[in-house]
Amino acid sequence: MTAAAAKTKPFDDPLYAPLLAGDRRALARAITLIESTREDHRARADALLTALLPHTGKSVRLGITGVPGVGKSTFIERFGLHLIEAGHKVAVLAIDPSSKRTGGSILGDKTRMERLSREPDAFIRPSPAGTTLGGVARRTREAMLLVEAAGHDVAIVETVGVGQSETAVADMVDMFILLLPPSGGDDLQGIKKGVVELADLLVVNKADGDLVKTAQRSASDYLHALRLLYPTTAAWMPEVRTCSALEGHGIAEVWQAVGRYRVAQGEAGIAKRRGAQARAWLWNEIGETLMAALRRHPDVRHLLPALERDVESGALAPSAAARRALDTFLGR
Amino acid sequence: MTAAAAKTKPFDDPLYAPLLAGDRRALARAITLIESTREDHRARADALLTALLPHTGKSVRLGITGVPGVGKSTFIERFGLHLIEAGHKVAVLAIDPSSKRTGGSILGDKTRMERLSREPDAFIRPSPAGTTLGGVARRTREAMLLVEAAGHDVAIVETVGVGQSETAVADMVDMFILLLPPSGGDDLQGIKKGVVELADLLVVNKADGDLVKTAQRSASDYLHALRLLYPTTAAWMPEVRTCSALEGHGIAEVWQAVGRYRVAQGEAGIAKRRGAQARAWLWNEIGETLMAALRRHPDVRHLLPALERDVESGALAPSAAARRALDTFLGR
Repeated sequence: MTAAAAKTKPFDDPLYAPLLAGDRRALARAITLIESTREDHRARADALLTALLPHTGKSVRLGITGVPGVGKSTFIERFGLHLIEAGHKVAVLAIDPSSKRTGGSILGDKTRMERLSREPDAFIRPSPAGTTLGGVARRTREAMLLVEAAGHDVAIVETVGVGQSETAVADMVDMFILLLPPSGGDDLQGIKKGVVELADLLVVNKADGDLVKTAQRSASDYLHALRLLYPTTAAWMPEVRTCSALEGHGIAEVWQAVGRYRVAQGEAGIAKRRGAQARAWLWNEIGETLMAALRRHPDVRHLLPALERDVESGALAPSAAARRALDTFLGR
Repeated sequence: MTAAAAKTKPFDDPLYAPLLAGDRRALARAITLIESTREDHRARADALLTALLPHTGKSVRLGITGVPGVGKSTFIERFGLHLIEAGHKVAVLAIDPSSKRTGGSILGDKTRMERLSREPDAFIRPSPAGTTLGGVARRTREAMLLVEAAGHDVAIVETVGVGQSETAVADMVDMFILLLPPSGGDDLQGIKKGVVELADLLVVNKADGDLVKTAQRSASDYLHALRLLYPTTAAWMPEVRTCSALEGHGIAEVWQAVGRYRVAQGEAGIAKRRGAQARAWLWNEIGETLMAALRRHPDVRHLLPALERDVESGALAPSAAARRALDTFLGR
């Protein structure tokens, strides 16, 4: 919106100005607004987002994942406090598609990051509820735009990796961090195939007490494995670090690695990645909405179970089945 | 089709009976038919596929990929000859989305597998041309059904890994094999992130002459890296073997590994994977066709370039842009 346009047509949503000024309650309300499925709320949310868009993008966007028990909350809290001490404003969002409205998610749970949640310069928000990963991801992307407009210059999105959520998170951040347990091997049960090569930085946690040498050996093993399986001439080779979130060692070094990554990519590299992510989001959104419309169509809904069954059992060729579903949807 | 139905309503496409009897020309013509984009050809192809469906599924479906220069053609030829000697009928298909109609693809090129192409029990087909990976993948899946109906009990799909073609191939086979060069490191330039963990079997080629020990060390390194990064309690842990396609060593062992894999998965496991693949194909097909219809819509086509540009530059929120495209398409 140009200054001239703003003078003639001020944006008058009551959340707009307070949010831009950094008011936490306005930010929280705006996020609740974008999470709503009501059509009138959606329209208001769209208008608010569009008006705030010029004020977004000015954060370092980080994704963090790791198997349950690796110490994600402890790490994020320690990391967040370090950033705040250095003068940053940190937002922590979460994607957990399994969270239910009543139960809530353990991710982004303030009780697990109690010290951080008490900081005025920290904003922590649990995962939005949602029936599809696509819906949850969209709300989280929009929440990230809002926290940026509210002045947060580091935005962290965490996930425990249910289904495809790691890919969704990697698709909305500048850098993806994988937390690992110190002893590798059996402790890695639960790391899904595909997550390791999403990571731009791997951090072996719990490098304290008896496990310091074990953690260092694991880090070295991971690095060797990465270099073997994923040699690259790209601007950045994924690094492997150790830390102890509990004792506060290695945390500053993680932030330094983030800095090195950003230098390696350059502003142009980050902007290019974000542009591609925005375009992919556009097409995902279009695709998901179209598919939802198809699935909702009464005749298609009636047809689908038998179609899927026949396709799965090999009685009907998938291309023929697709044609039937589409002809029904498009009324041909 | 039941015997009774066949008696009352014989399927009368002239390609049907010869193809089922194993006639190579009928098979080749049928594949050309499914590659056609003409509406009347498509209708005939659908009918033919549906009629042949009960005769499909009876092959071992293998995907093979590797960086250029790793010796894929030499390997497939040697492997194919071994299978034919053992009494099998082998089909080799290819996915190479970059192939143009006039230029042809180097994959599935009979001149690179000359000995194999002369075998009566081998059927080699170059990649279909196509403008999208989805279109090429669909034609290849359908070609695989046809080669199975024609009596081939091993179906190999090869790819060089342009874009996302490895994923497309892994999604249509029972087992995915990655060929690797003997010395790892720099020779792996070109292996895309994500390909390694698609592989159920890794084969280090060129384990001959000076490179035998190097190849064995590489195989051991790869195995260690895999076990570290992808520990699994699944029925099958990816194996790493060495071979020399040139000298013919280790080829029988690759086929034995395929057999071990099938035993580990069991018939139920293979059927389950194929059922899931068929369902995914159905939804991919629906999604792709819907998106193509949207992109073709005259008003949407007019709107899209500016929409994408604004989204990529951060001037318009992707969700708002998606809504505009969809409202235009659905005429709202």
